[in-house]
Amino acid sequence: MRAQIISIGNELLIGDTVNTNASWMGQFLNELGVDVQRVHTISDDKQIISNTIRQCLQESDLVITTGGLGPTHDDITKTTIAELFGVEMRQDEEVLIYIKELFASRNIPFSASNAWQAMVPENCEVLFNKAGTAPGMWFHEQDCFLAVLPGVPYEMKYLMKRRVASKLREHAKDIGYIHTKYLKTAGIGESTLSDQILGDLSEYLNDQVSLAFLPSFGQVTLRITGKGVSKEEAVSNTEALIALIREKAGKYIYGDDKEHSLSERVGEILMDQKKTISTAESCTGGLIASTITDIAGSSAYMLGGVVSYANEVKVQELGVSENDLEEDGAVSKKVALQMARGVAEKLGSDIGISTTGIAGPGGGTPEKPVGTVWIGFYSKEQHFAVKALLTKDRLVNKQRTTIMALEIIRRMLLGIDELPYALTKEMA
Amino acid sequence: MRAQIISIGNELLIGDTVNTNASWMGQFLNELGVDVQRVHTISDDKQIISNTIRQCLQESDLVITTGGLGPTHDDITKTTIAELFGVEMRQDEEVLIYIKELFASRNIPFSASNAWQAMVPENCEVLFNKAGTAPGMWFHEQDCFLAVLPGVPYEMKYLMKRRVASKLREHAKDIGYIHTKYLKTAGIGESTLSDQILGDLSEYLNDQVSLAFLPSFGQVTLRITGKGVSKEEAVSNTEALIALIREKAGKYIYGDDKEHSLSERVGEILMDQKKTISTAESCTGGLIASTITDIAGSSAYMLGGVVSYANEVKVQELGVSENDLEEDGAVSKKVALQMARGVAEKLGSDIGISTTGIAGPGGGTPEKPVGTVWIGFYSKEQHFAVKALLTKDRLVNKQRTTIMALEIIRRMLLGIDELPYALTKEMA
Repeated sequence: MRAQIISIGNELLIGDTVNTNASWMGQFLNELGVDVQRVHTISDDKQIISNTIRQCLQESDLVITTGGLGPTHDDITKTTIAELFGVEMRQDEEVLIYIKELFASRNIPFSASNAWQAMVPENCEVLFNKAGTAPGMWFHEQDCFLAVLPGVPYEMKYLMKRRVASKLREHAKDIGYIHTKYLKTAGIGESTLSDQILGDLSEYLNDQVSLAFLPSFGQVTLRITGKGVSKEEAVSNTEALIALIREKAGKYIYGDDKEHSLSERVGEILMDQKKTISTAESCTGGLIASTITDIAGSSAYMLGGVVSYANEVKVQELGVSENDLEEDGAVSKKVALQMARGVAEKLGSDIGISTTGIAGPGGGTPEKPVGTVWIGFYSKEQHFAVKALLTKDRLVNKQRTTIMALEIIRRMLLGIDELPYALTKEMA
Repeated sequence: MRAQIISIGNELLIGDTVNTNASWMGQFLNELGVDVQRVHTISDDKQIISNTIRQCLQESDLVITTGGLGPTHDDITKTTIAELFGVEMRQDEEVLIYIKELFASRNIPFSASNAWQAMVPENCEVLFNKAGTAPGMWFHEQDCFLAVLPGVPYEMKYLMKRRVASKLREHAKDIGYIHTKYLKTAGIGESTLSDQILGDLSEYLNDQVSLAFLPSFGQVTLRITGKGVSKEEAVSNTEALIALIREKAGKYIYGDDKEHSLSERVGEILMDQKKTISTAESCTGGLIASTITDIAGSSAYMLGGVVSYANEVKVQELGVSENDLEEDGAVSKKVALQMARGVAEKLGSDIGISTTGIAGPGGGTPEKPVGTVWIGFYSKEQHFAVKALLTKDRLVNKQRTTIMALEIIRRMLLGIDELPYALTKEMA
């Protein structure tokens, strides 16, 4: 099935709004097995809208428009389409009742421009929109399907998932079901994960099952996509590959949901194990504490932390040895070890995590270039530090150090002895 | 001048990449006075590229393509264009020398596919690209200009600003110069700033001068755009409006560059005044410290901080009274005041800033709903706390509290007595 997308709106052409709708729809349709040939971004102009739709109806099997369905005078999509097909507008009673109830429930007066939302071209089937007030519309004309959707991303996505996908399945035999699973890993490089850990997966990959590696800031998310003629078949088609990935790479996987963050996972483990944590940060400057406390309910396990930017704070607040600071410098194994233990003992937490490094862009030396970072870990059972060499970019270094520290905590709590990137534990 | 943009690349159609190039170009061209009629997003297909360019050349005065200029086999834009115009490819010696030197300086071996980057259709003028290895190309055919640019956003922007804009001025009389100035404010609402502080600006606004309000997370950026027939005239056209805004809203403006952040500004003032700072954070969980230390060189004024999530940490590390904690609760004026003074005294900084609040989504009560935040400020001269009621969203509350705290610091350091959002200082 060949499709074209028509994005309608002056705000897209003058760059006030980025056309994220088109890329979301492109991905959604692609996963359904629809081939998106072209995206047209056009202005709110009657003639241009009409000509573009007419041409696309001739060239493709499916045309989807977004935008121009609001209640104001520059929203002209549906009247333009009625004219194009030479039909009248009709009032859809079900939509009208729904909108009236919606306004009543919000105590907003109902006006004529709101009632206009319930008017649709008489040859359309309404795609009922429970995410907003503008109904979607479905046409079957000239051997082509036309879906007309609002431009509000939330409403467009609702209608694509709940209405358009099932319409396509109803009419086109080659449109199947899609199941997407995300497995999130941290502390392992994309190529190591792909080549050394997972190895050749070609016998598991085919038209029905695909795998993508999505790297970002010290994390790699695996996206496994299955297709099938039913939801169940799509799920079942992914199962063998997911089982194999879990078997081979299980210890690197911290989450199996797209929205599941590493700090949330660490929080869950701390809750399960009834353990508490505290942080002693130099080069990350509070980012680890902030990331941990992004999670609702983190006060159950996060006692607090010390941001020890100045050396005096490392000495006074964390009990770091002045002598070691002078001899080895602040960015050193000894200081990382002492900071981690210092904060755990001072705040009385089970776990202490520390960072000290040269975030950049200045401050590097030949022995300790920008990007040199030490992370310290302390618990009753273990006390070690890890050295990593990151990038020249200050914010990237803060971000990557934070992810690495959280992943060290996760692995140590779960008894996974291997450190991120197979780095080496250095003891006191 | 009427323009069309052609974005080339399968990754755009299947949704792997969002077409941010098109919206950036739309804004850039719109500011230059060019009317962008349409954006075509198409696949890396020879026939489709060729047909789309041919049609656009007939309809518009300017056509700009991005994408498909890399060294690999799916990059077919320039050979397709050579065929379309019926011309041969030629090697551009200047580009070849530049690429060879670039590779030599990076110690990368130079290959045949790299040399291919220096080949261009013989009827083009090269738009020399110092931001990358793929040259841009400029054609004048069929009474239309065609600019062919790489899809890498950084390279595309370089060529648009440095090459395409001057080419357009050379050939089209109605293309003027644009000057854009950003004035950044914090701690004042968009409508207050617009209605009460700035008032009616209509006599300053016209075809040559425009003003936009860009709000985000407790900050409002004013974008002033001037147009003119020369760079000087464009700048000069903005001057009266900028002077008026500075006169009326000067104390709210912390920066006059798009990239200037509030934490950078606070850092500059601390450096100027040779003062140091420390943080005592509860509800922001380290985000203020992290934001301050995002700035390179912040170790000159940032001594460190305490993240006092647990009440015990507030008592032990910051000297908060156990009695006050019990009577007034952690989210209270007394605790905010004691945290700010406690951290400043303990770490020996000139300024202490504190936060304690109910970040949400849970934990609210009728007296202290989610979003209730106290910020404490301590210096030798002043010691006060401020109460704000923010949102139900945890991450928004962390972000907005951080901005408000930084803006309080900025205003107090500069002797601006008015607090953000005209909130009231509450003393001990």
